[in-house]
Amino acid sequence: MNRYPKEALVSIVAQLACGMGVPQEDAALFAEALVDADLHGVPTHGVSRLNIYLKRIEAGLIEPKAELAIERRAGSVLAFDAGNGLGQVQARRALDLLIPLARQNGVAAATIRNSQHFGALSWYANYAAAQKLVLLAMTNGEPAMSPAGGYEAFFGTNPIAASFPTGKGFPVKIDLSTSVVARGNIIAAQKKNEPIPEGWALDREGKPTTDATEALLGTVLTMAGHKGYALAMMVELFSGVLSGAAIGAEVGSMYKNLDRKQDVGHFFCLFDVQAFFDYGEYLRRMDETIDRIKASKKRAGVDEILVPGERSARTAAVNLTEGIPVSPETLAELEGWCSRLQVAFNFREVVCRP
Amino acid sequence: MNRYPKEALVSIVAQLACGMGVPQEDAALFAEALVDADLHGVPTHGVSRLNIYLKRIEAGLIEPKAELAIERRAGSVLAFDAGNGLGQVQARRALDLLIPLARQNGVAAATIRNSQHFGALSWYANYAAAQKLVLLAMTNGEPAMSPAGGYEAFFGTNPIAASFPTGKGFPVKIDLSTSVVARGNIIAAQKKNEPIPEGWALDREGKPTTDATEALLGTVLTMAGHKGYALAMMVELFSGVLSGAAIGAEVGSMYKNLDRKQDVGHFFCLFDVQAFFDYGEYLRRMDETIDRIKASKKRAGVDEILVPGERSARTAAVNLTEGIPVSPETLAELEGWCSRLQVAFNFREVVCRP
Repeated sequence: MNRYPKEALVSIVAQLACGMGVPQEDAALFAEALVDADLHGVPTHGVSRLNIYLKRIEAGLIEPKAELAIERRAGSVLAFDAGNGLGQVQARRALDLLIPLARQNGVAAATIRNSQHFGALSWYANYAAAQKLVLLAMTNGEPAMSPAGGYEAFFGTNPIAASFPTGKGFPVKIDLSTSVVARGNIIAAQKKNEPIPEGWALDREGKPTTDATEALLGTVLTMAGHKGYALAMMVELFSGVLSGAAIGAEVGSMYKNLDRKQDVGHFFCLFDVQAFFDYGEYLRRMDETIDRIKASKKRAGVDEILVPGERSARTAAVNLTEGIPVSPETLAELEGWCSRLQVAFNFREVVCRP
Repeated sequence: MNRYPKEALVSIVAQLACGMGVPQEDAALFAEALVDADLHGVPTHGVSRLNIYLKRIEAGLIEPKAELAIERRAGSVLAFDAGNGLGQVQARRALDLLIPLARQNGVAAATIRNSQHFGALSWYANYAAAQKLVLLAMTNGEPAMSPAGGYEAFFGTNPIAASFPTGKGFPVKIDLSTSVVARGNIIAAQKKNEPIPEGWALDREGKPTTDATEALLGTVLTMAGHKGYALAMMVELFSGVLSGAAIGAEVGSMYKNLDRKQDVGHFFCLFDVQAFFDYGEYLRRMDETIDRIKASKKRAGVDEILVPGERSARTAAVNLTEGIPVSPETLAELEGWCSRLQVAFNFREVVCRP
């Protein structure tokens, strides 16, 4: 797979978004978000999605110039209407408005409705951690999972993330979907025409399937059975019910519904470490915890114990030096949009030669 | 199993706690908490634990008259020191101090250090929901689970709970340990001298085991592998690192360490629904969500789709009418303490006859 410098990818994504009417500053944020996912080794939420975002803008299903509106403000809580704008842009703007409230009151929470698929939670998590803040983040999403015992898609793969600053050069970052597997992996398998492992999904009749297309028409299973169902419910209630966004099966599908908006809902809760604890002492405790975990006795065949967030930080470091891998499919999509929007970009020239 | 009226059980537990030096009001709260777990069908966290709490008070490992101290107050955040008091009493007191802050600022968060095993999260969850508040609650606990790839007990089974008020007569209540199974189930199997299913635990050498005693000496597995590990980490960081409590393997064991305190840490985050949304409209959205989930198409062999919290609410309703089941082992322990503390209580007289 060809690798490209981060700056080159950010630049091309931003130019293409601009070309579709996204204001320059917003396009820069959007591009940063997408490329950040690839940088951290999550290409399913990165530049590979640019094509569908642009298509949806083109179809009038995303408002490229949307303003972020505060619908309700009460103490340390902000409830936002994203105006059907790009999720990454609106959520990052919301986070920026939430940060001063968290610093002032120690904790602050926000809901965002009328938004889109807003990419990898990890981007928001890393951003907060870099500012000595703890972030808890959730989002609902297009219907993918049924409640336990059912087989109609209701919940999204409803991810939950939390990030904590450390003194180790990377934040501890919890970032997981409440499904057995992220839907992105099934989309990736479908794109490659590959089967998916058993235990990932049910087909439209509620029977187990290994066919990626059938799985995307059917339902993805929740992780850990009832427990994953309960967590998906929690995410849906915080992000969907409490935000005023679409709930469950009413959330629009990014890929399937090319006739209506998604109306995704997000939830953020920010904590200022210093409201709870002396920051230096917190860092000492955090780093010692990481050291102890990494020093755990290892099961047979295990080389190293990693803490959550460590692997993706390492991947980012490698990709920053060696360039970010971009799949041939994504490259072809980028070239297609460049030619359509008359954006000059010489991919052969910027490709990394490690 | 004999069943007893709720009031009778609350009364006897409170009297025994009083007999061990717990002030009357605190003893009443403590008894309510324990019996509430049995009422909701979670006997592993209920009256069956009274024996070990009283033993630990007797051994000077729990301070029965502890005061709850606010160590840090910043905006909408309170950091508490439980003074090594009973977890249930101190956590409920902390929650009562947090509620006005949540009403004032829309969101409020608290950490509690220097505490004990504080029972079922469900008690706090139901309490908050009854007051139109959303609660997110976590606690660390005595070492039980290893990080992914390891086999030394580090994390507790680190549960996470969240509750949401509804118009359905019961709150939606997410309440799960991040382990494959709650440690209480393994303790229960050990008490009954029964094997545990495969996939629950590793022994001291990191090998799979079905022996409950070996499992309690070894490690319980995290739910959903790496995802459960990540969530256990999140719970540990909020409840342990951020609170100033013991972290991971340093948390004392309730049953094994009869020579030192536990120093458990808890974390609460409270949200006032009305800061986010009109309450009536919220209820309408919530109830509609529940109705839709329950109306899902059912997999073969499934009679009814339940939402999280529904089953335990039903169990509580049955137990309130028919009496709360108490195991012969727990009954024997209660009778033993009654005789030691010269508390008169005629179990034969109060037993329910359905």
